[in-house]
Amino acid sequence: MEVVMSDKPICAVSTPPGVGGIAVVRISGAEAIEVVDKIWRGKSLLTGESHTAHYGDILDAAGGILDSGVATIFRAPRSYTGENTVELSIHGSRYIQQQLINTLVNVGCRVAEPGEFTKRAFANGNLDLASAEAVADMIASESKAAHAIAVRQMKGDYSKRLEELRSKLLDLASLLELELDFSEEDVEFASRKVLLDTACQVKDTVSTLVDSFKKGSAIKNGVPVAIVGDPNAGKSTLLNALIAEERALVSPISGTTRDTIEETIDIDGIRFRLIDTAGLRETDDTIERLGIERAKEKIAGAATVIWLVDGEKLSGANQGYIDQLLRQKEDIKYSMHPESKLIGVVNKIELFTGEIPDVLQIDCEISAKEHNGIEELKNALVEEARKGVPEETALVVTNARHYESLLMAAESLQAVIEGLQSGISGDFIAQDLRQVNHHLGAITGAITTTEILSTVFSRFCIGK
Amino acid sequence: MEVVMSDKPICAVSTPPGVGGIAVVRISGAEAIEVVDKIWRGKSLLTGESHTAHYGDILDAAGGILDSGVATIFRAPRSYTGENTVELSIHGSRYIQQQLINTLVNVGCRVAEPGEFTKRAFANGNLDLASAEAVADMIASESKAAHAIAVRQMKGDYSKRLEELRSKLLDLASLLELELDFSEEDVEFASRKVLLDTACQVKDTVSTLVDSFKKGSAIKNGVPVAIVGDPNAGKSTLLNALIAEERALVSPISGTTRDTIEETIDIDGIRFRLIDTAGLRETDDTIERLGIERAKEKIAGAATVIWLVDGEKLSGANQGYIDQLLRQKEDIKYSMHPESKLIGVVNKIELFTGEIPDVLQIDCEISAKEHNGIEELKNALVEEARKGVPEETALVVTNARHYESLLMAAESLQAVIEGLQSGISGDFIAQDLRQVNHHLGAITGAITTTEILSTVFSRFCIGK
Repeated sequence: MEVVMSDKPICAVSTPPGVGGIAVVRISGAEAIEVVDKIWRGKSLLTGESHTAHYGDILDAAGGILDSGVATIFRAPRSYTGENTVELSIHGSRYIQQQLINTLVNVGCRVAEPGEFTKRAFANGNLDLASAEAVADMIASESKAAHAIAVRQMKGDYSKRLEELRSKLLDLASLLELELDFSEEDVEFASRKVLLDTACQVKDTVSTLVDSFKKGSAIKNGVPVAIVGDPNAGKSTLLNALIAEERALVSPISGTTRDTIEETIDIDGIRFRLIDTAGLRETDDTIERLGIERAKEKIAGAATVIWLVDGEKLSGANQGYIDQLLRQKEDIKYSMHPESKLIGVVNKIELFTGEIPDVLQIDCEISAKEHNGIEELKNALVEEARKGVPEETALVVTNARHYESLLMAAESLQAVIEGLQSGISGDFIAQDLRQVNHHLGAITGAITTTEILSTVFSRFCIGK
Repeated sequence: MEVVMSDKPICAVSTPPGVGGIAVVRISGAEAIEVVDKIWRGKSLLTGESHTAHYGDILDAAGGILDSGVATIFRAPRSYTGENTVELSIHGSRYIQQQLINTLVNVGCRVAEPGEFTKRAFANGNLDLASAEAVADMIASESKAAHAIAVRQMKGDYSKRLEELRSKLLDLASLLELELDFSEEDVEFASRKVLLDTACQVKDTVSTLVDSFKKGSAIKNGVPVAIVGDPNAGKSTLLNALIAEERALVSPISGTTRDTIEETIDIDGIRFRLIDTAGLRETDDTIERLGIERAKEKIAGAATVIWLVDGEKLSGANQGYIDQLLRQKEDIKYSMHPESKLIGVVNKIELFTGEIPDVLQIDCEISAKEHNGIEELKNALVEEARKGVPEETALVVTNARHYESLLMAAESLQAVIEGLQSGISGDFIAQDLRQVNHHLGAITGAITTTEILSTVFSRFCIGK
């Protein structure tokens, strides 16, 4: 592992950008306390003990008073980065934040790169790489489920599991390599049966992780749900009904509203991205066809599709209309990802009389307008979203980098298994095992490259 | 002074709204430490000393781990509010911030009102009212000059001056009131001459403060500068030239960019609001006249008007055009506030040949296109903005509430002075003096009402 660090302490505003009651500027590095003390008027920070907070004035570059604030000292190695760290809690004006950074640069700091504090924590062994990545996920998480996965990962549960698997394989690999040293004597230190069992066992776990990625990624970014059906089936009304009930649950904390391209809602701690689509119907009109094409794209990208049937039109409909609906459903299914799920919903149930034909395979009956049956539909959405998510959230992959490494590990594992089954020589198997170890180690950071590190930490915000 | 507080600790996110590396949630109240300890997993906070920081896990309402973070303890009276306070430094995700507030409410906190922490600091005597208001100004300040005024005011310099004046008057008022007790004996404890001198002296200071408001307010909110002149005189080019040079000075700190309605720039630490206007010309066209009307409104609201003359058109112009320019200048001056200043500028100087007629009274010659003379124009703007600002920034009024109180104090002082000069009886003078003391005391908070308090603190952001 190679992490090159400059000697200057790094500094950055660690709190969200903008104006607030207070802002926190973090300074980390061997000389962090000395540098801050230069612009500090109050009891000297130089002799301050670790984990103590001090009130005083902060000077600007010209020696005038920039602000009054609190400096909290964390001495190495008892800090987030593992280095000496000072956190300056100041008034949250843009001007003060900016001036403080300028002043710190003036007295010998360097502005931190995104994620550089966490990078240093990693370099100093305070965090493994997957845990460091989970810090970024945690900060970005907006739902209970995404947050829970990130917390477990940050706490290292995920890395621990991967390192257990790696260490099993490493033991076997070293036995194999021992054989190679004695190759002329034709001994077998590593039982082929134990090796095969272990490889299969690891492959199972890796496959579970690989499979969890689609769900994990949906949980992290929001489960895409497309609402499709006839024009006037009530798609927008349903969208509004789903949103309306959930909006009330948003707590009165400033800053939680934000612009969204699609509407997102949280149900039972899972974030859903609701996508309204153009009405589907057979048409020769070019413009309308374009809209339908776009709807089909959205269907293809959705994890769940709500197929909405107009209950009013269905009421006493002839076989022709039912056949048309069945064709529509087939069309939708054709556009869908094979692993996605269709939920059949009859809307406007307040206007429906008669029996819903079994052949339509309807899951829910609702009135979007009168807010009936919405709860059942939500339960169906949640149930579907939870399917395929391992019970243990430590075993859910949400990170594309991990997913790729796991795919490559699985491939090499397959080679190991096939090699063992066909009885090829130990050195080939050892080589494949090294590959597996390499890919799993890249996830936790046991094996890493400058390229991996820069990719990982560029995802971070400045100040973390 | 009556400040009713509930017994529950208050809590709020004190850092700017949004997502960042870290966020700080502040909890204040007698039971603050006990309440936070309920959701804390780590070394108990109950025995933690003041000004110490502790690392641990924070639980959510269900007892799961919400986050890992740092709790800093400030014990009464050594805290901002004067009460027991805990600052929880957590990961800056929206979800975590929201959940932590929810959890704190669950275990017995109440969400703080805007400015409630500072209100408690005021109630506990940690800050006077003008200093508390300066905290809000400081957080909102975006330029060096505005920040400097707020810092001085927060540090109490301003209040100290006002309290000095008040105490002088209070001494005199008590002597006057002593006379009233002995009214039948016709004694004069308070020398009328000393009284008159003091009243005049206080009146001078109050008048200086009153006069500083227009400038102070401009410094706080940005000095409005209107750029006016012929169509095609180069107004927008000038605006861009002024902006372009200053933009480069913006430090690379995230979150400093923001939407503005007008363009604002900082020159020498003073914020200017640059207002581009429609070209001025005599016209019969209704729509164009509307634009010119609006330009005139902007001229009326500007502290400085840059009158831009087209150097190309001026080059070898006949008397008729010069007369037209003089009429234009008169028109502008007619629209301007009498205390505002006009800066005459010839633009496109690179295309000008000959002598600029003295009658136009031009202050600067520039080429906005070639960025010539821009520095001189900026100096002129800064010089003008600084005029009338007392040397001592502690004596600049930026707050409309203070301005109103000072106006009323000045009025009562005038009554005192006139009363003394006409030799009216001491009890009338004492009554006017009480009025003066009341108005000055309302600024510092020595005299206050629930109404004043709620007005003052509603300006604050939540969490401060």
